[in-house]
Amino acid sequence: MIKQVLTISLLAGVMFAPIYVFAANEPIQPIKVVVPEKPEVAELGKMLFFDPRLSRSGFISCNSCHNLSMGGTDNIKTSIGHKWQQGPINAPTVLNSGMNLAQFWDGRAKDLKEQAGGPIANPGEMASTHELAVKVIASMPQYVAKFKQAFGTDAVNIDRITTAIAAFEETLVTPGSRFDQWLEGDKGVLNQHEIEGYELFKSSGCTQCHNGPAVGGTSYQKMGVVHPYITRNPAVGRMDITGKEQDKYVFKVPTLRNVELTYPYFHDGEAATLEKAVEVMGKIQLDLDFNQKEIASIVAFLKTLTGKQPEFNLPILPPSNNATPQPQPF
Amino acid sequence: MIKQVLTISLLAGVMFAPIYVFAANEPIQPIKVVVPEKPEVAELGKMLFFDPRLSRSGFISCNSCHNLSMGGTDNIKTSIGHKWQQGPINAPTVLNSGMNLAQFWDGRAKDLKEQAGGPIANPGEMASTHELAVKVIASMPQYVAKFKQAFGTDAVNIDRITTAIAAFEETLVTPGSRFDQWLEGDKGVLNQHEIEGYELFKSSGCTQCHNGPAVGGTSYQKMGVVHPYITRNPAVGRMDITGKEQDKYVFKVPTLRNVELTYPYFHDGEAATLEKAVEVMGKIQLDLDFNQKEIASIVAFLKTLTGKQPEFNLPILPPSNNATPQPQPF
Repeated sequence: MIKQVLTISLLAGVMFAPIYVFAANEPIQPIKVVVPEKPEVAELGKMLFFDPRLSRSGFISCNSCHNLSMGGTDNIKTSIGHKWQQGPINAPTVLNSGMNLAQFWDGRAKDLKEQAGGPIANPGEMASTHELAVKVIASMPQYVAKFKQAFGTDAVNIDRITTAIAAFEETLVTPGSRFDQWLEGDKGVLNQHEIEGYELFKSSGCTQCHNGPAVGGTSYQKMGVVHPYITRNPAVGRMDITGKEQDKYVFKVPTLRNVELTYPYFHDGEAATLEKAVEVMGKIQLDLDFNQKEIASIVAFLKTLTGKQPEFNLPILPPSNNATPQPQPF
Repeated sequence: MIKQVLTISLLAGVMFAPIYVFAANEPIQPIKVVVPEKPEVAELGKMLFFDPRLSRSGFISCNSCHNLSMGGTDNIKTSIGHKWQQGPINAPTVLNSGMNLAQFWDGRAKDLKEQAGGPIANPGEMASTHELAVKVIASMPQYVAKFKQAFGTDAVNIDRITTAIAAFEETLVTPGSRFDQWLEGDKGVLNQHEIEGYELFKSSGCTQCHNGPAVGGTSYQKMGVVHPYITRNPAVGRMDITGKEQDKYVFKVPTLRNVELTYPYFHDGEAATLEKAVEVMGKIQLDLDFNQKEIASIVAFLKTLTGKQPEFNLPILPPSNNATPQPQPF
């Protein structure tokens, strides 16, 4: 990130240098706009992201649980899957998710492309299969034309479907938050209460994990470093991947960007409010008992992390035709 | 409609008059763009249309079953409701629905505003109550500000919520179809096969019911005029409203605009393809046995009715806050 900042400073000339040097000294850096390398691939990915025909029922799309009208989440404790199955874990936001070191709470997918294939074929989520999803998409000539535009040939396969979805997701960044404006030198944009919150956020140790441009997403940490986290949710985190006892309850640190929009909090969705989340984190991770005033100031700071939400036209999808496998909702 | 056409002809001057006179002689008239009287009301309505918090679960929005990426329908036989309940009837498209003489298949809502209140409080659909929906929306200051902008004062109530949703829905028209271009004088835009289909559509009597700008939506008709329609779907149509035996199986004639996008067909969704729908309609309504070639030409005509789909930015919704009633998905 720092390398990127310096490059931009050089390009922008000496005039802007002090601003970026300032930002580079902070544990949090501004979010940068992502310009997709291949816009046709991202554009196709947007259509697929909104297409409920990737699910067996024809009712659930990526956007159902990562709703881009609502901070890239579903805002419920754990998600609703095929036939209203209750999901095991809170849906993380897709916003700025390209900055995560890996995907899912336990990091079991190495990148967005690998992640995108998961829910499609998960019987508890979209309940399709990769084979069926490919058959559905490949049946529509309008989609096939888009694949040809995006990839050069008209082959439709799960590799290309997930590549396109990931390319769209990479663009879902939220620059321009008030905090980023402040980082970039506009000192009047935060009030004293918010700045105090940020100072407390740093001095308390929150930035040990919640740092970088995404204010998280860059490491795995135990949920309950100092005191155990009490929950009925059976998820054990990284242990499922590594098999190691020491990875029990170790999860990917979530991004705090747009955290005002991504309630409820934690992998189990059990913290309904930011106040509760800050209180619990302070206690179990840092052994701190924040008082109400401290909590309020940290929450005020966290709300400055809400950025400009991705703005785009709702995609219009090609119609199914007589060759398209029909949805099986019931 | 004819009155409107003449007015426009007068306004547009003599030059365009022949085109409109031509269109006025056809049983189908072009779709006109709708400019909302109060854009702030329609804009608020768009947000509400996409807001899943109008449902008890926080998961189902108007757009879930009237998906504007997919012709304003869900493209499944009968809709999925709260906790995956199977709906009783096929979701009609919201596109051009402002032209319907009434709403729902049985016309039980006199207009879009009355319709909009139905699914919100229907235990089998969004499963909320008007009281809860109002409480949810009124809890968000950003929404309250929009209500003030739209209606002059900051009161949030179900009357205003449904007024706004209806105002947005009124804008969801689809002008510019190839058929409309043809109607307006661009004779080269349809091929011979499509024109033959239209001629057959007229000469067979389809336009007795499917007429006007929406190619339907202007009358109630019995499903099974000549031969009974066999279905396991228990809906009896208008009889539920009027109590009269003669209204058994009488439904609102659906619009055929964008019919290529609004599969599957009929109130029970049992016709998966346009070919099947045309065949069945010919038989039970008109006592005609269309052959494959005739069916193909009518279908080719019907596909020229696909218009320009409404284009707009996906709305960004205000976040819930600590005062917002929480969703109850499970």
